[in-house]
Amino acid sequence: MSNVEYSKGLEGVIAAESRICKVDGENGKLYYEGYSIDDLVEHCNFEEVTYLLLYGELPNEGEFSSFQSHMRASRDLSEPIRRMIQEFPNENHPMELLQSVVAYLSGYVEHKIQHSAHCNCRDTLHQVVQLSTVVAAYERYKTGHGYIRPSKSLSHGSNFLFMLTGAEPGELEGRIMDDCLILHAEHGFNASTFTARVVASTISTCYSAISAAIGALFGSLHGGANEKVMAMVDEIGEPSNAAGWVNRTLDEKRKVMGMGHRVYKAKDPRAVIMENYLYQLSEKHGDFRYYEILKEVERAFRDRMEEKGKPIYPNVDFFSGAVYRLLGIPTRLFTPIFAMARASGWLAHVLEQREDNRIYRPKALYVGERDKTVIPIEQR
Amino acid sequence: MSNVEYSKGLEGVIAAESRICKVDGENGKLYYEGYSIDDLVEHCNFEEVTYLLLYGELPNEGEFSSFQSHMRASRDLSEPIRRMIQEFPNENHPMELLQSVVAYLSGYVEHKIQHSAHCNCRDTLHQVVQLSTVVAAYERYKTGHGYIRPSKSLSHGSNFLFMLTGAEPGELEGRIMDDCLILHAEHGFNASTFTARVVASTISTCYSAISAAIGALFGSLHGGANEKVMAMVDEIGEPSNAAGWVNRTLDEKRKVMGMGHRVYKAKDPRAVIMENYLYQLSEKHGDFRYYEILKEVERAFRDRMEEKGKPIYPNVDFFSGAVYRLLGIPTRLFTPIFAMARASGWLAHVLEQREDNRIYRPKALYVGERDKTVIPIEQR
Repeated sequence: MSNVEYSKGLEGVIAAESRICKVDGENGKLYYEGYSIDDLVEHCNFEEVTYLLLYGELPNEGEFSSFQSHMRASRDLSEPIRRMIQEFPNENHPMELLQSVVAYLSGYVEHKIQHSAHCNCRDTLHQVVQLSTVVAAYERYKTGHGYIRPSKSLSHGSNFLFMLTGAEPGELEGRIMDDCLILHAEHGFNASTFTARVVASTISTCYSAISAAIGALFGSLHGGANEKVMAMVDEIGEPSNAAGWVNRTLDEKRKVMGMGHRVYKAKDPRAVIMENYLYQLSEKHGDFRYYEILKEVERAFRDRMEEKGKPIYPNVDFFSGAVYRLLGIPTRLFTPIFAMARASGWLAHVLEQREDNRIYRPKALYVGERDKTVIPIEQR
Repeated sequence: MSNVEYSKGLEGVIAAESRICKVDGENGKLYYEGYSIDDLVEHCNFEEVTYLLLYGELPNEGEFSSFQSHMRASRDLSEPIRRMIQEFPNENHPMELLQSVVAYLSGYVEHKIQHSAHCNCRDTLHQVVQLSTVVAAYERYKTGHGYIRPSKSLSHGSNFLFMLTGAEPGELEGRIMDDCLILHAEHGFNASTFTARVVASTISTCYSAISAAIGALFGSLHGGANEKVMAMVDEIGEPSNAAGWVNRTLDEKRKVMGMGHRVYKAKDPRAVIMENYLYQLSEKHGDFRYYEILKEVERAFRDRMEEKGKPIYPNVDFFSGAVYRLLGIPTRLFTPIFAMARASGWLAHVLEQREDNRIYRPKALYVGERDKTVIPIEQR
């Protein structure tokens, strides 16, 4: 180790300017292009939010109508892509498949690499749109079912549930699924978004950049927290076990999943919305078990933290897994759904990076040996 | 634009410690794990250098024998991968295919993600080894030929030429190809290697990280310089045209490709070796046209630069394209060959990143709007 100081993981280091996302951690607010997430969830669907992220402003009716038609016309998968999905080994993770498919897709779409934000990436939205079709097709094949062609009349979220099950989801379920995509569409310079920007900075394609970002999101330190929350919920089993479980876990200095966030000092605004959806779905199912377990965990956790004088709140992952489960979605799709949503944000960052680009080339601090001589192999 | 200062492209910012590579730009020296590139090219083959990069030390005979057998046993492609290659649209770039295949490969290899340098990535070398088979198979299919199964008795470089043509290359050609891979195996924190480290920092798989790095190398600001050099050579046509071409190009303030390097102030040590190989191959072919054109360009360029008092030397890309062409390799494979070689370095960086990991999460400088309100779409 050397004595030269630097910031590991580039913590606190500014990597670029951005106008896409503002996380106001102090006040528990999240903004996309200046609009609060609450406002967007209330008034827009995922396709409209995608337009906002890619163009920097909300569309008028004419703009939105043509954008939406274009997105919906891009939903279906070509035969070779479907074969890739079918042949992907069964025991492997769909994130590996997603990363591969997005890079492969670029071969099937007419696109240019342009050193300009005014490239045609906004017109070739397959890398955003088809992710949901790939995820649904993966699940269909894996469970021994056939491919379901996407609908053009459903919202992005509703269509995803339709392609999973073959049945149109209820109005509530479709809206919640679509809103979940909005809530995960963007969140600043996390590792996957930063990956997309680094790849974009070489003036590679949008597909290359988004494929790379999927690889980063697959990492266990990045995606996957809501899977772990549901493992916790399953372990707890009943609401009455929750407080004891939390106290034991904290006594043993282990982590309670879905609690706290690097940036939010107040409650994660996405968690507030997710909690409400979980309540609505629990009510519709007439089954409040997940909801009550989670609320008991939250309560017990808060009590313990208040003793220490440092309040820690649930983040979006705390409630999203239970929401997905009540929507009938298997756990292995949780991180792929994150990718489906975040693809819009990644593409927005790719475009922004190109507007005022410099290739990322940080320095390494050399700590290795110097001037060694190769000894012939038979003398080693 | 804001007044807060930061370094665009992270120029000059230390991103991590590394012991893998030292570029001594002042003296025109390049070291892998403390060994100079000249020493390595003289004494080792690409497989041995790969061992060095992955383990930090050169192998003894027993270690090398088992490592080499393992690498060679991993060369062949499975049927679904071959189908992916065959079905990849003809007009698209093989780098997109490579990025996709490496992510897909992970499904076909038993591997674990471990937050440790002692993971089994060194044992699952498909992501390094099979790249050359994918590139060769791509070229075979593209030109209407069949797949050639890899040989186990040839070096990595010789086997690549064998899989391209179906004939064992001569001793000289095989050795030069293998050395070209050594010369491109590693070069510090460029954008693709940095991409691999960012993805690895999330504790994703080696395959995810290398696939992402391929996406970065595909960018026109990163790979591809030797393609542009050969376009220049073809435009010049004859050695006698070279000086005039260089003078016109500089008068018009356009760029002469393959000249100068961000880091090297002396001649790029890889260029010195490449020039020698180009001479040897030209001698064998009895055709010095490329060699003489390039030497004339170098001379004319140097004369002009000396007038300005700032010497600029050729870099590795200046000679490598001509070397590849005399080896019978089509231009579209130049950047894929770069990826085949650099995969060893990428994997070494993935392992090093994991040894002392922190997830990369730089900051964005927010320059966007605040507190906008969504106006209903029909009023926009």
